[in-house]
Amino acid sequence: MIRSLGSVLFASLLTPAALASDPPVTPSAVVAQAPASAWRVIAADDLLVMTIGGGKRVVIQLAPAFGPRHVGNIRALAKAHWWDGTSINRVQDNYVVQWGDVTEKKPLPPGLSPTSPADYVRSIANVRLAVTPLPHADPYAPATGFVDGWPVAMDGDGAWLPHCYGFVGVGRNTSPDAGTGAELYTVIGQAPRQLDRNIAVVGRVIEGMAHLTSLPRGSGDLGFYTADEKTVPILSVRLASDMAEKMRPRYEVMDVGSASFAEYLRLRANRKDDFYDRPAGGVDLCNAPVPIRPISVKPAP
Amino acid sequence: MIRSLGSVLFASLLTPAALASDPPVTPSAVVAQAPASAWRVIAADDLLVMTIGGGKRVVIQLAPAFGPRHVGNIRALAKAHWWDGTSINRVQDNYVVQWGDVTEKKPLPPGLSPTSPADYVRSIANVRLAVTPLPHADPYAPATGFVDGWPVAMDGDGAWLPHCYGFVGVGRNTSPDAGTGAELYTVIGQAPRQLDRNIAVVGRVIEGMAHLTSLPRGSGDLGFYTADEKTVPILSVRLASDMAEKMRPRYEVMDVGSASFAEYLRLRANRKDDFYDRPAGGVDLCNAPVPIRPISVKPAP
Repeated sequence: MIRSLGSVLFASLLTPAALASDPPVTPSAVVAQAPASAWRVIAADDLLVMTIGGGKRVVIQLAPAFGPRHVGNIRALAKAHWWDGTSINRVQDNYVVQWGDVTEKKPLPPGLSPTSPADYVRSIANVRLAVTPLPHADPYAPATGFVDGWPVAMDGDGAWLPHCYGFVGVGRNTSPDAGTGAELYTVIGQAPRQLDRNIAVVGRVIEGMAHLTSLPRGSGDLGFYTADEKTVPILSVRLASDMAEKMRPRYEVMDVGSASFAEYLRLRANRKDDFYDRPAGGVDLCNAPVPIRPISVKPAP
Repeated sequence: MIRSLGSVLFASLLTPAALASDPPVTPSAVVAQAPASAWRVIAADDLLVMTIGGGKRVVIQLAPAFGPRHVGNIRALAKAHWWDGTSINRVQDNYVVQWGDVTEKKPLPPGLSPTSPADYVRSIANVRLAVTPLPHADPYAPATGFVDGWPVAMDGDGAWLPHCYGFVGVGRNTSPDAGTGAELYTVIGQAPRQLDRNIAVVGRVIEGMAHLTSLPRGSGDLGFYTADEKTVPILSVRLASDMAEKMRPRYEVMDVGSASFAEYLRLRANRKDDFYDRPAGGVDLCNAPVPIRPISVKPAP
């Protein structure tokens, strides 16, 4: 069949012989050939495991360094099993899937941190790792790059996570409300980066995105499901660290300071291979997703 | 419920009194209040009407000025009813939905124009209308803007349609094959603009996008449906001009040279209203979709 578009990130189309001998010419080949030292295990306390109707699993990686108060609340809500019995209530094409307590009456657990719009942007000095710059023009921020496994936009000392596809943000009412973390959404279309710095971004979906993106769109305003439509039940939301160890999903993310990531990023910006003739010479912050993969179980020696 | 994210483009949330008296402060309000003179009817010969399994309708606006040979072929294929009985064969999350003849054996109608990679970029001198610039940085092209109702990226005299969400491209084999137009795809995630200038972009989906984006993702490589999965049947594809007049969908697109469009674009780049605190100060080419709406039937006087 017509192999009409370039290879997907995580499926290497190279033969084993090619893998062994030739320098990688596609981003996915770089990822497939990256050494073990280029990967960092994601902490179980940073993984939120959501099971929705049909037993489908969605896994979200939280970013506590970028949203400590919101992420703290999210962990508290997960520990309290607060989302069990809530639902996905909104699916708006080319925008978001949103979920939470549709009644808006379910009592929150005690002890949640207050939040404010000041939480939307963090001081980059607080993120002690070096930033790998993305040296291309961006219309939303003076500078962009990658740090600690995350894409970031920056303005002076301030840094924030962008509203990329699959990224998770915190629903709120009008400012100065900044949301508790109980109402969440993920981006399912072109990155709505006009929302950056206007709402808290706290993580990204790393597994099961298609379970959300293939949902029927809501017919109501803003894509909310109407009374005639079925919301999607959320059966449970748990931190991986609160699951039995054998049940936990395990993932690793590429070290954005590694040589592999540098080459991956360069190729995302400059595709030239048997499919691509003309390298773009640049790439946008949301079009070079940091590689993430499940940790495969190693056979016993 | 938490109105957690800003208003959708085509749903005005202003009250009628507000519509009548206050200057619009949101992009959707600008669109709702735009005068009739700000709109241009889309020619019936530019509308491709695809009906898929379940009787769901998808409407695509073709861009003959940007891809005359590919669009000429697409019109010929539609007139020959060539796609009837073909199928949607690939749904890859955050990438594309692709359709055509999965057997690759169905004979093409005679008289199709040959195509080549030279068709991917057009001379801007051939597009006789003025370009409304988008004066913000773009990592994929030296200049961007809007002309004749379309977003365009430009490099010197060359112009091309970007791979925005909902835009339709022509599947091909490896270069120098440039595809006939028989195999098509649309973007269902973050704009893969590394494909710009590497493949022909010929139009955009203007109705029924959710019928495509909510499809199950294919389990095979690149999101192709496997032998165990059902492809989605295409029942018919017709040009609106070949349909009985009363059956034709009718649409209008905002004049990108109008004052309304200028204000819409300014607000897309600078949101400041009861939801947004911090205007971004910029917007990317694929995050300010040119407004398009069905033409409402006017009541008899």
